[in-house]
Amino acid sequence: MTDQIDAEGRLHHLLTLDGLPRDVLSRLLDRAQAFADGEDARGALAGKAVCTLFFEPSTRTRLSFQRAAQRLGADILNFEAASSSTTKGETARDTLKNIEAMGVQGFIVRHFADGAVAELAAAANEGAALVNAGDGRSAHPTQGLLDMLTLRQALGADFSTRTFLIVGDVKHSRVARSDLHALRTLGAGTIRVCGPASLLPDGGTLSGCEVTQDFDAALDGVDAVMMLRLQRERMVEGLVSSLDDYHRDYGLTAARLQHAATDAVVLHPGPMNRGVEITDEVADGARSLILRQVANGVAVRMAVLETLLR
Amino acid sequence: MTDQIDAEGRLHHLLTLDGLPRDVLSRLLDRAQAFADGEDARGALAGKAVCTLFFEPSTRTRLSFQRAAQRLGADILNFEAASSSTTKGETARDTLKNIEAMGVQGFIVRHFADGAVAELAAAANEGAALVNAGDGRSAHPTQGLLDMLTLRQALGADFSTRTFLIVGDVKHSRVARSDLHALRTLGAGTIRVCGPASLLPDGGTLSGCEVTQDFDAALDGVDAVMMLRLQRERMVEGLVSSLDDYHRDYGLTAARLQHAATDAVVLHPGPMNRGVEITDEVADGARSLILRQVANGVAVRMAVLETLLR
Amino acid sequence: MTDQIDAEGRLHHLLTLDGLPRDVLSRLLDRAQAFADGEDARGALAGKAVCTLFFEPSTRTRLSFQRAAQRLGADILNFEAASSSTTKGETARDTLKNIEAMGVQGFIVRHFADGAVAELAAAANEGAALVNAGDGRSAHPTQGLLDMLTLRQALGADFSTRTFLIVGDVKHSRVARSDLHALRTLGAGTIRVCGPASLLPDGGTLSGCEVTQDFDAALDGVDAVMMLRLQRERMVEGLVSSLDDYHRDYGLTAARLQHAATDAVVLHPGPMNRGVEITDEVADGARSLILRQVANGVAVRMAVLETLLR
Repeated sequence: MTDQIDAEGRLHHLLTLDGLPRDVLSRLLDRAQAFADGEDARGALAGKAVCTLFFEPSTRTRLSFQRAAQRLGADILNFEAASSSTTKGETARDTLKNIEAMGVQGFIVRHFADGAVAELAAAANEGAALVNAGDGRSAHPTQGLLDMLTLRQALGADFSTRTFLIVGDVKHSRVARSDLHALRTLGAGTIRVCGPASLLPDGGTLSGCEVTQDFDAALDGVDAVMMLRLQRERMVEGLVSSLDDYHRDYGLTAARLQHAATDAVVLHPGPMNRGVEITDEVADGARSLILRQVANGVAVRMAVLETLLR
Repeated sequence: MTDQIDAEGRLHHLLTLDGLPRDVLSRLLDRAQAFADGEDARGALAGKAVCTLFFEPSTRTRLSFQRAAQRLGADILNFEAASSSTTKGETARDTLKNIEAMGVQGFIVRHFADGAVAELAAAANEGAALVNAGDGRSAHPTQGLLDMLTLRQALGADFSTRTFLIVGDVKHSRVARSDLHALRTLGAGTIRVCGPASLLPDGGTLSGCEVTQDFDAALDGVDAVMMLRLQRERMVEGLVSSLDDYHRDYGLTAARLQHAATDAVVLHPGPMNRGVEITDEVADGARSLILRQVANGVAVRMAVLETLLR
Repeated sequence: MTDQIDAEGRLHHLLTLDGLPRDVLSRLLDRAQAFADGEDARGALAGKAVCTLFFEPSTRTRLSFQRAAQRLGADILNFEAASSSTTKGETARDTLKNIEAMGVQGFIVRHFADGAVAELAAAANEGAALVNAGDGRSAHPTQGLLDMLTLRQALGADFSTRTFLIVGDVKHSRVARSDLHALRTLGAGTIRVCGPASLLPDGGTLSGCEVTQDFDAALDGVDAVMMLRLQRERMVEGLVSSLDDYHRDYGLTAARLQHAATDAVVLHPGPMNRGVEITDEVADGARSLILRQVANGVAVRMAVLETLLR
């Protein structure tokens, strides 16, 4: 479906981590690490233009990509569907083609529909590169990459002896899907997934994972706990009975974290519902890598933009 | 009314193409062509600041001007009335004078009211330059210029033997008015205008034009078809009976385009109502210059900003 | 409460002018004067990033800070609460910490709640600097500074023989509070405050001021009249009976201005309600420094950002 990578192994778009070869993924993480270490790259994309193209709002992801583009010296344009001619009936494809015609080479695209970014990539000119900044519940590859970079920094590059736990609304989470793809590619030893049955996906999404609804059991001996955000609308949909119940069963507390390995780390993609899926004590505690994830997000996005546009 | 040009023929603002001398217009097109050909001008407006001042929303036009300003190395500020102190009762004039006092030299102004940009230009300091990015139904001079650049690239600089056709809601279209002014100034051979009677203007707007409601007849032998966007609100106003009827009578189809000259080109200012005023086949076909128009838009706006602010 | 200044007298944040030592304040004004005189500082903050973080909308203040950051060569990010994950339940503190983690050093924060910016400053990392761009009715220090710079340019640096008059809704005005703090610190001779009883604050805010409800008497011999904006919602709250009454009693007209010293100057923080607290004749007259204030605003914000971030 997505030809994000050509016969010579060159990345033209970043649409998903599904099927992305390990060496491509590792090279991106290596470059990201260099940027996280402070490598100056002001001139890398000088004169090039990058446009955030958001058909679903997200301030944080947009800011992170903007900061990445700034550090690479790129010009930045911003398009948000709400204030745009989509309301005048223009298609997303026409919007892309128009901004492309303005001399923009890089597109950071977020869309509410699964597969929408890949469809747009198929319509793009040869010189243009698209980065999927989240489409439906399918993929959020830069979030997956930044999670991997964060884990690599904390646990070392060899994931084969480690146990990783993803907790929460995996069913609706593009973050979880991208994490799962990357963890498998990087040879994670054990991947556990935990959440209420109503929030766990069917089908092959969890193939190879240990799946349980018992959070305490799932935590036993894990090296990394990757919490997911609980979308409050899940309650309206009847998938979660109450925030209190959810917190009791799937909220990460300091007491619960004791079940994990002694040096286990905690990740969360943000924004957090403090007191629901995670307590303040854990979120702000010594094992939390949550702000490190945010810092790595800029570095990873620099690596992706540099790789695609240089 | 508008003194956009001084006694020495220097352009101080760009408010309208009405009355703009042919040599000024041609010089702008020549500079725009150089920018379209890739001339680097990063240093041209370094240290200068340009502000988009939009009292009517338009993402595409704003992005095009921003890209132009970026390629000229200018700093960019953005003001949109919706999120502004106009809601606190400040006048547009006070807003302009304030941003001017912040050290901004160039203003890209869009306003819903006819003549509003010229009024603001009259209030500006000597060092400030205003570009009309669309006011009411009066003028959209940079759109007129980019259309002329696109036509010149396709047909050559001599318009005197050519036939041009403008189709659609001419009555409410500032694009059509600016195109008409520019076509006359550049010595267009024949200008035809076609649309339903309810969407054709009274008075002198169409002086010298061949006017008809018969689209097939109008197309006969034309070198360029310049389609206009149908504002959907025209239906609510009762000026158009239905989108289907409009498409039947004034939609440009591949079959219809056969009436035109064999190498006739098709323009549309965007955003398009695909399936209404134009079919996919034509919009995306070999004769369509629609994306070329968008690319030329950046080049033309660079030429205008450079001319006004250097 | 706010430790904006350390033991060595270095400014780490700018939260309030309350208690800011005279030498610190004067140094800021001196640097601002240099920037107002055109000092080029493109390289001062090159590679550094500044984020506007607005939990209450304000286009003008945001533009002024953006222009200041541009003139210092900083990268700029923008966050507005309305289009942000605060709607997803994230706290302001988490938002700050996240953007900080993205590698942003400077934060321009506006918040609707008193003290909110100081709270955020307490949560910031050591390397980060916050500028209060207005919190509740407490403080708007850069507005206070730009007013002082404007007054110094007009009256000279010695305020001790001068009489200053602040007029209007002092009770709800953070501008008035910051002006009062700065005027006292700079040794203003006489400070008068005038407004309807319903719009004058209780407690110590006006300590040392001459307070009156009689505008004509208050104007007698003053060197500077500092008008405040009347928030129209004060009528809804019943604090002002009508705009007409307010104008009659507290509107600054040319006739009224005759009571002041012959070379008295007029300030207003904008946006103005023309015809309410000030007439066109005064606002646009020879004694008005209102646009000079706006110009000085950029210079003052440059001085603050340079001082905090260099």
